[in-house]
Amino acid sequence: MFAEIITKVRQKTPLVHCITNYVTVTDCANILLAGGGSPIMSDEIDDVADITRICNSLVINIGTLNKNSVAAMLVAGATANEIGHPVILDPVGVGASGYRNECVKELLSKVKFTIIRGNISEIKALAIGEGKTSGVDANVNDAITAENLDSYVDFAKKLSAETGAIIAISGQYDIVADAEKAFVITNGVEEMTKITGSGCMLTTIIGAYCGVDADHPLEAAVAATCAMGICGEAAKEQMDCEKSGMGSFRTYLIDRMSSLTAADIEAGCKYEIR
Amino acid sequence: MFAEIITKVRQKTPLVHCITNYVTVTDCANILLAGGGSPIMSDEIDDVADITRICNSLVINIGTLNKNSVAAMLVAGATANEIGHPVILDPVGVGASGYRNECVKELLSKVKFTIIRGNISEIKALAIGEGKTSGVDANVNDAITAENLDSYVDFAKKLSAETGAIIAISGQYDIVADAEKAFVITNGVEEMTKITGSGCMLTTIIGAYCGVDADHPLEAAVAATCAMGICGEAAKEQMDCEKSGMGSFRTYLIDRMSSLTAADIEAGCKYEIR
Amino acid sequence: MFAEIITKVRQKTPLVHCITNYVTVTDCANILLAGGGSPIMSDEIDDVADITRICNSLVINIGTLNKNSVAAMLVAGATANEIGHPVILDPVGVGASGYRNECVKELLSKVKFTIIRGNISEIKALAIGEGKTSGVDANVNDAITAENLDSYVDFAKKLSAETGAIIAISGQYDIVADAEKAFVITNGVEEMTKITGSGCMLTTIIGAYCGVDADHPLEAAVAATCAMGICGEAAKEQMDCEKSGMGSFRTYLIDRMSSLTAADIEAGCKYEIR
Repeated sequence: MFAEIITKVRQKTPLVHCITNYVTVTDCANILLAGGGSPIMSDEIDDVADITRICNSLVINIGTLNKNSVAAMLVAGATANEIGHPVILDPVGVGASGYRNECVKELLSKVKFTIIRGNISEIKALAIGEGKTSGVDANVNDAITAENLDSYVDFAKKLSAETGAIIAISGQYDIVADAEKAFVITNGVEEMTKITGSGCMLTTIIGAYCGVDADHPLEAAVAATCAMGICGEAAKEQMDCEKSGMGSFRTYLIDRMSSLTAADIEAGCKYEIR
Repeated sequence: MFAEIITKVRQKTPLVHCITNYVTVTDCANILLAGGGSPIMSDEIDDVADITRICNSLVINIGTLNKNSVAAMLVAGATANEIGHPVILDPVGVGASGYRNECVKELLSKVKFTIIRGNISEIKALAIGEGKTSGVDANVNDAITAENLDSYVDFAKKLSAETGAIIAISGQYDIVADAEKAFVITNGVEEMTKITGSGCMLTTIIGAYCGVDADHPLEAAVAATCAMGICGEAAKEQMDCEKSGMGSFRTYLIDRMSSLTAADIEAGCKYEIR
Repeated sequence: MFAEIITKVRQKTPLVHCITNYVTVTDCANILLAGGGSPIMSDEIDDVADITRICNSLVINIGTLNKNSVAAMLVAGATANEIGHPVILDPVGVGASGYRNECVKELLSKVKFTIIRGNISEIKALAIGEGKTSGVDANVNDAITAENLDSYVDFAKKLSAETGAIIAISGQYDIVADAEKAFVITNGVEEMTKITGSGCMLTTIIGAYCGVDADHPLEAAVAATCAMGICGEAAKEQMDCEKSGMGSFRTYLIDRMSSLTAADIEAGCKYEIR
């Protein structure tokens, strides 16, 4: 599964149109290039339709959304839907403000997303905001643990059924699910939460991976999640042996993505199917 | 003094709402995470009030201000004042344009700032723009030297009395003062002026430090200034021994913030009280 | 030729006003500082005229243009023209959307540019959009090769004659030309295309170099192109010997710019005149 995706990405250099936040945008562009894709950032409403048309996929990340960029997201999303491009949503910070909740609600009602990726708090907030609360138990704590894993897998599958999108939840256990099948992935290291942009970068890599094979978004999201986790593990090893710190970790993460092979993913991936 | 602040930051992970420029924003987010805080960037007027409410402090940095972000700064500042959160101003480039002067004047008139941090030129421009010129002698050169240090300490104390904010002036000598008491800090290295964002990063760290103890902003600003300076010194040592350059220096600065302990600050801080 | 420019830059610290994209802006600021200049980013229409006046040159980069920033570009460009400052255009992505084409057309019609720098696709799109298609042969492939080099040199000279700007085309062969004379430069490494911002950074360095000598923009653009290429070569050597990857390459590029001397350029530059 992985070898095919990685090989295609390195051969085809998928163009990914990103409407994303200005905090992590440089790292998203660089990890995308390191991973074999090519980034185009554009968030001007009069620019986005043309840009989306020449790309292979569209990533919408609401990290530093504003009225202009949200309007552009809607136009780009509609264009991508019209021409059948994969569209990936990263609902950064949804649940933290009424404005973010409303924008995500509008995006979900007007754009058909192929994949939605966030941390568990964001995905829960998105589900609640949509009135799609099935499986979101108020008693379930936010962190995914061995104990509550089954209920979250269930939640992810149901939300996928309701939204029609692959649901990718990042955390100590990553869950990537469609309505029928969930991958539980345990690659990755805690350090990834101590730099800004690990999640945004993963979303961008997902954009590249499903940009070369729009028919298998579940596999693309799983491969990207394993790939980022494996790069994180290798970056941590490098950081520990050089006694460096979190500034270097961020650099090493991109280093490791640039040298990542299909064989690395095959050898290093840790997942089970539920 | 330092041990308590650092320990609290590492325990509580203060959330810092940053309305900041897009030049140094990634480094601000990463050094904040490295230093034990957590960043949320938002500059949309309809988003900022909710975001500020869930945070512990608000940092306003005008580096790449525009009409939308200034409007958002005013709303966020008013919200933070209403709920008693510390608000820190970094008046980047004030004095360089009429627009920046006007915006800073409006911010100062409508928002009560806990701490104002800038270089000496910015702080002088801010004082003049406010018509609060006491102590700003046209004969005093901009650079703070051993010779003019006393008059700048005096200036900082007076400006603090007039604005009600702690005044933090960065330079070869850093001055951090309230109306009564000034700390003169000599940590830091010249290399910090050869990367973009040293000042912005310091302001963000101040946001984290006073986010865990809103009652002691003077001590928070002093601790953050010493912390950044000590990280700069360690980063320079690492750069020199690895024969690298300014790209690496920037990475090392964040490395060293991520490994910084209260003991490092206690051992490395260089200040006197005037 | 090179020694004089580099020496002047290190002595005078030219201020470069950048209206640029938020993807590569941090790297542009840092490489500018590393190279001896000083950056000011501002894209608010009410701010830009004052900022441009205190600077030595203006760089306009349309990477993430929007209606507000384009309006600011026009005001800043007119101001810089009025006071005789060099103005450099980086038409990122022109040809990829109708909006970018229109904006570049408007910029070219209202602002006199000293230097225009882009990759060959962008420069061709710009020439076609301007109705200045002389020399742009539909049979000529985009990549500059030993075979088509002469025709591209011709194209660059003609476009320079038509626009009045130095034309700098980046690629495996770099061409920097005025109407009479072209430099073909072969410094640089392929890795520079695998990070975001190599082109933007070069444009910014050109801004610094012609900021200290507005009368010799051709020489400034040639020196900057050689400088960036030589830094890329050195960064690649360092990357290879440390077994790192593209995240580190980006850091090393800035490292090498910060240690670059006039002697390094004199010794390492590879160009011929056509």
